[in-house]
Formats: sequence, C-alpha cells, structure tokens
Amino acid sequence: MTSPAPQPAGDRPAPPPRRRPGGRTARVRTQVLDAVLAELGEAGYDGLTMEAVAARAGVHRATVYRRWGDVGGLLADVLDAAGDDDWQPPDTGSLRGDLAALNQEIQDALTAQPPIVAALIAASFRSEKADRAQRRLWEDRYARCEVIAARAVRRGELPPDTDARRLLIAATAPLYHQLVLLRTPPDPRLPDQAATTAALAASAGAFTESPPVGDI
Amino acid sequence: MTSPAPQPAGDRPAPPPRRRPGGRTARVRTQVLDAVLAELGEAGYDGLTMEAVAARAGVHRATVYRRWGDVGGLLADVLDAAGDDDWQPPDTGSLRGDLAALNQEIQDALTAQPPIVAALIAASFRSEKADRAQRRLWEDRYARCEVIAARAVRRGELPPDTDARRLLIAATAPLYHQLVLLRTPPDPRLPDQAATTAALAASAGAFTESPPVGDI
Repeated sequence: MTSPAPQPAGDRPAPPPRRRPGGRTARVRTQVLDAVLAELGEAGYDGLTMEAVAARAGVHRATVYRRWGDVGGLLADVLDAAGDDDWQPPDTGSLRGDLAALNQEIQDALTAQPPIVAALIAASFRSEKADRAQRRLWEDRYARCEVIAARAVRRGELPPDTDARRLLIAATAPLYHQLVLLRTPPDPRLPDQAATTAALAASAGAFTESPPVGDI
Repeated sequence: MTSPAPQPAGDRPAPPPRRRPGGRTARVRTQVLDAVLAELGEAGYDGLTMEAVAARAGVHRATVYRRWGDVGGLLADVLDAAGDDDWQPPDTGSLRGDLAALNQEIQDALTAQPPIVAALIAASFRSEKADRAQRRLWEDRYARCEVIAARAVRRGELPPDTDARRLLIAATAPLYHQLVLLRTPPDPRLPDQAATTAALAASAGAFTESPPVGDI
C-alpha cells in the first residue's frame, strides 16, 4: 500500500477492469500489466518492448498492440490501474504521525526492489502518456491525503484555513528530492524528519493564507 | 546566475578550461559545449547526437569522439563546466530573504526557455555519466549554500546546531517536486512560500539534532 508514490499492481490483487468486469478482458489486462511490471523491474524503460510484454504475458502480440498501442500506453495503463484501489492515507491520531507514516510509505516505495516505482517515474521523462498518467496518479494520491489536514484541523492541531495541498507537498517533497533527483542513499530518519518539519511549520501557520512571518 | 539548479555556460562567459588555459583546446571546448546546450534546448536528449554537436560547433567529429566519448560524456562536461563558476547564494540580510531569493533563482532556472536545465535533469535519468555529473553539481551548489545557515546563526536567527543541509533541502525541495516531478505550472508565490515554511520550521528548531517536537 502506498501513497503519493504510484503503487503498481504487482503485489496486490489486480484492480477491477474498466469495462467488462471479470472475464477474459480483465484477465488479459491483469496478465499484461503484471508482465509490464516484471519487465520494467528487470530491464527498465530501455528494455521494455511490446514483444517482450506479450511473450511474458502469454498474450498475442496483436492484442497488445491493438489495446495499448505502444509502450507509453502500457505504462499509462499500469499507472491508471495503480490508482484503481482503495488506498487511504495512514490515520495515526496526530498530524505528525500521519505525515511520518505517509513519508515512510513513500520512502519504502521509492527504494523498493525491484525499483518499479522509480522506473515508472523515470519513464515519465520519456513518454508523454506515462507522464500524464503519473501526474493523474499523484493528483489522486495527494487529493486523498488532504484528509490528513482536515483531521488535524478537527483535532485543533491546525488553523482552519490551512492549505492542505501545500502542507502535503512540503511534507513529502524532501523524500522525492533526495531519493529521485539527488539520489542520496535512503536515510531512515528522513520520513520522520520531513514530517516533523512540516508539522512544526504548519503549527506556526506556514500554510495559511497569510502566514505569520513576523520577524523571520 | 543560479543555485542548486545547474547553470550551463550558455548565457555567460565560458568557464576556464581545465588543462590549457586559453588557446585552441579551450576554444574547442567552449564551441562544443555551447553546441550541446543549443542542441539540447532545441531537441532534448533524444535529438542530441555527436554528429549534430560536431557540425554545429564546427569541430571535426573525430575530435568530439576522442575528447568526450559519447553523448553522456558531453552532458557530463556541460554540467562540470556549469560548476566552474564563482556563483554564491544570495545575501539579503535575513534567512527568509536568502532562501526566497535562492528559490527564485531555482524556479527561474527550471522554467527558463529553452528548457536547458530541465533537459539536463531529464538526461540524468538516461545517462550514468550525466547522472554523476548532475549530482556533483547539486552537491557543490548545496555546499556553497550552507553559508546561508551560517549567516543566520551569526545573526541569532537560528540555533547554532542547525543542520544547514536539511534546512536547504526542506526550503528548495518543493520547487523541484512541483516543477520537475509533479510538473505543475509555475506559481510565482512558491519560491517565497517554500522559503517561509522552511524559515518558520527552522526558527522552531526543526533542523537541530533534537527538534522540540513537544506536542505536535
């Protein structure tokens, strides 16, 4: 289970198909998307071909071309399938706890082996279809996470006019920056540290319309 | 002038060559690296070839192959050249001001047209040589920025045991996350908002060894 990071179908039950529930269409989709994840994990974007996916899935090549078009179409469907789940952000009872647990999920996803989530993010720099699907997934994940701020407001931990999205970006951005761009080795303290930083800033009113900048 | 974002040589005087100051070697390097930037700005990584760079630079192909080896070698030298400058972080007189000005430089670099800095970051997902050079450049930029924290400590704005690097990552990560990964349209308020958030958290002790987590 994860969070703003995409969670491909690999380790969990296949998502429901969009059009024909059950049946052959759904089975083929599951086989093909699982094959995409396996190929991506082994060889990355450069090793991902329609032929290899069809062969691994045991599905006719023509079917894969007809339904997904190209590698970008396959990646986009993997990402869309990852969003077809009932994932909800952690609910630990405190803002800092929720953000730390969320960050831990992100760090786990970004450092998992095989590096599927990292490969999907890298692929979003190569394929416009994957890019759009990755952004849809992130948008969906961040929207689901806004409940973290709403709960904190109800508990009196945050001012009511807190901008939930800015708080969530501030809390999670250091994980992505360190692990995806700076590519530093994962630091086990980072999820909690980034959560604590965002929670401290939030308590100080950093994410309200007019932050109390005072003398800083 | 920029900051943790790489600043290629395009708009400023050529960096000094490594071995033979002045002379033909330096001129060839300048011509070739300028050609790499121009090609990258026009066509991105996929359009970047040794042949096109040599032709645009007016340099013999064999020279380009001998000296840079491949496209990754060209990109790495562009990034290394970008670090051969005397860039220093902004010095505005306050922590928040310094971080906001730094973030503005990063946002300007990441949204510049042609999108050279963005293309170099994207290339770091494709070429190991570019990846290593990009990380060297970021490391150098963040190291130079640590003076921002040191000045704030001297002014009494920050506790003496503040972890400068964590503060800088927290301040700048939202820019990279929004513009490079989430690819949201640039928000003119973001540089200042992210700086304010980090400065508020820093004032609350978020980047000291034992943050005062108290009741958050």
